[in-house]
Amino acid sequence: MNPLSKIIKSIQPLDASAMQNARELLNGKLKPPGSLGRLEDIAVKLAGIGGVAGGTFRKKTIIVMCADNGVTEEGVSSFPADISVLVAETMLKGISGVSVLARHAGADLRVIDIGLFGDVPDGRIIDRKIRRGTSNMAKGPAMGRAEAERAIETGMEMAGAAIDEGADILGTGEIGIGNTTTASAVLHVLTGEGLGGIVGRGAGLTDEGLRRKQEVIRRAVDLNRPDPNDAVDVLAKVGGFDIAGLAGCYLAAASRRRPIVIDGFIAGSAAVAAVKMHPGVRDFMFTSHASAEPGVAAITRVLGLEPMLALDMRLGEGTGAALAFHVIEAAVKIMNEMGTFKDIGM
Amino acid sequence: MNPLSKIIKSIQPLDASAMQNARELLNGKLKPPGSLGRLEDIAVKLAGIGGVAGGTFRKKTIIVMCADNGVTEEGVSSFPADISVLVAETMLKGISGVSVLARHAGADLRVIDIGLFGDVPDGRIIDRKIRRGTSNMAKGPAMGRAEAERAIETGMEMAGAAIDEGADILGTGEIGIGNTTTASAVLHVLTGEGLGGIVGRGAGLTDEGLRRKQEVIRRAVDLNRPDPNDAVDVLAKVGGFDIAGLAGCYLAAASRRRPIVIDGFIAGSAAVAAVKMHPGVRDFMFTSHASAEPGVAAITRVLGLEPMLALDMRLGEGTGAALAFHVIEAAVKIMNEMGTFKDIGM
Repeated sequence: MNPLSKIIKSIQPLDASAMQNARELLNGKLKPPGSLGRLEDIAVKLAGIGGVAGGTFRKKTIIVMCADNGVTEEGVSSFPADISVLVAETMLKGISGVSVLARHAGADLRVIDIGLFGDVPDGRIIDRKIRRGTSNMAKGPAMGRAEAERAIETGMEMAGAAIDEGADILGTGEIGIGNTTTASAVLHVLTGEGLGGIVGRGAGLTDEGLRRKQEVIRRAVDLNRPDPNDAVDVLAKVGGFDIAGLAGCYLAAASRRRPIVIDGFIAGSAAVAAVKMHPGVRDFMFTSHASAEPGVAAITRVLGLEPMLALDMRLGEGTGAALAFHVIEAAVKIMNEMGTFKDIGM
Repeated sequence: MNPLSKIIKSIQPLDASAMQNARELLNGKLKPPGSLGRLEDIAVKLAGIGGVAGGTFRKKTIIVMCADNGVTEEGVSSFPADISVLVAETMLKGISGVSVLARHAGADLRVIDIGLFGDVPDGRIIDRKIRRGTSNMAKGPAMGRAEAERAIETGMEMAGAAIDEGADILGTGEIGIGNTTTASAVLHVLTGEGLGGIVGRGAGLTDEGLRRKQEVIRRAVDLNRPDPNDAVDVLAKVGGFDIAGLAGCYLAAASRRRPIVIDGFIAGSAAVAAVKMHPGVRDFMFTSHASAEPGVAAITRVLGLEPMLALDMRLGEGTGAALAFHVIEAAVKIMNEMGTFKDIGM
């Protein structure tokens, strides 16, 4: 059995009795039942994941998968192809968007080159490059199946390493030129959702650019005929190394029973792919924000998860996940620290 | 000129040139323009308030106005009348919902008895009791005009004192039996919105209770005929000491040019009253969450402010404001700490 099949087999459901217990504890807290709304749901879900109500996040880690996509030669992006390496550098320097917000949340970043065109001239990058960008999916499969499996396994290893280092909660993020195009393609194939409801302007496309992006995706799907029932096939043919790597992160988090926070559109498409491999992975996922990318609505619908934050962000990188950490921690602290009616003799 | 007229006169508009500068600084940051969505808008608004882009919140304070309402003798609440004093006690003990979330946000609480039925047996309560609860608005005005003005001025003083002690950002919260009824009445009169779109189940009313609540509000409005164009009159006749006090907090925050975060429904109705006294107060306000109380949608519509968090909370106390602090601080840190294209030689 290969590592991917093995991890999929290892995923267990939420702990129903811990959840029941958590719900009862919350009902004893000093508030009308249910009045903390989704904070209560989050606390209950966390109990189901960890097997116990409450707890502490000793360490929070955002895993950022960086990879470029050959499809950019079709002109689907408004940024030059070497931007990803520059952004990864700023992330390591602590001045990118997610660097600032991770610091604000007290979270660590783990920045992985899983397939950038260029090399990041900073020793802190974790080099797990599979290839210098995928092939152009408009002319053939983005990668071979073995490469897709290797990318997923890389994600599994990276999430596993973060957990080994003490991370009690994970977040996902990415950098990669052309990855709103690949994410749209993956989502389109896996969900059957029309491209109109999925494809957005990414980092700032014009109307003409938007049409071209849709046309390129349609061409890639027609040419490669990915099998909607085989997420690995979809990732290989029209996905990217970053998306495949993030799918692996979700699988590992579910297997190791750690909560994992979806960032925006690209990380969300990877979440859909992971759920396609095992529906139970969804139970370990939390959304963060309602991104301005239209596909995010499709993702939350498919996953049955509502976003917590309404900030119209569309930067990616893991910025939404970083902000969601504060809300998820709030739910745990409510469980740990809020008093009960019994405490005041009622 | 009385203190209220004086403070209203003192309110100045946002600093347009600081906002322009903030927008330009954000456009130079390492991201597609606008891709941090509302975080960017928050950072720009903060610049307009403080006159400078960026800065630090050295101290964050949530002001909690505690008061009871005579209208509870009409059976509009599902909790007993002595619950407010108990909740205020738990707040001071650090085990209420807002205590936990304020601690999580690194914020202080300032808990004020502005009109509770009973006395809070804890020396940390700030005693500014105007009266032991308002009169039953279903039988006559909730309070006299002089009392309403005194409540508003108390709020102005409390917010002023928090600012004097170093608070760079304020949040609002409340405790009070019957205050979703008074808040609904205030909102209904000030906005002209029908009761159907405003009145919710508060801390957990049945269908029958909901009908009674609407009927009581209708009776109170018919009897007292508050003048929709005179917010003080509305607060006096169908409001509460907590709502009037919070209205004073917003006015003081605007006058002293500090951002102030609206909590949920009750604090939101006070925000609408303050904006009615001076429309410019709106510029200093931030929303927090989309409460499960239906009236919150009316409030955000009237104020032209969108909620940041989608958590279906309806506890009040200031819990939503506490969570919003993290998001607002995130916006400031983006301004302070995020690198620019210039930094990487682009």
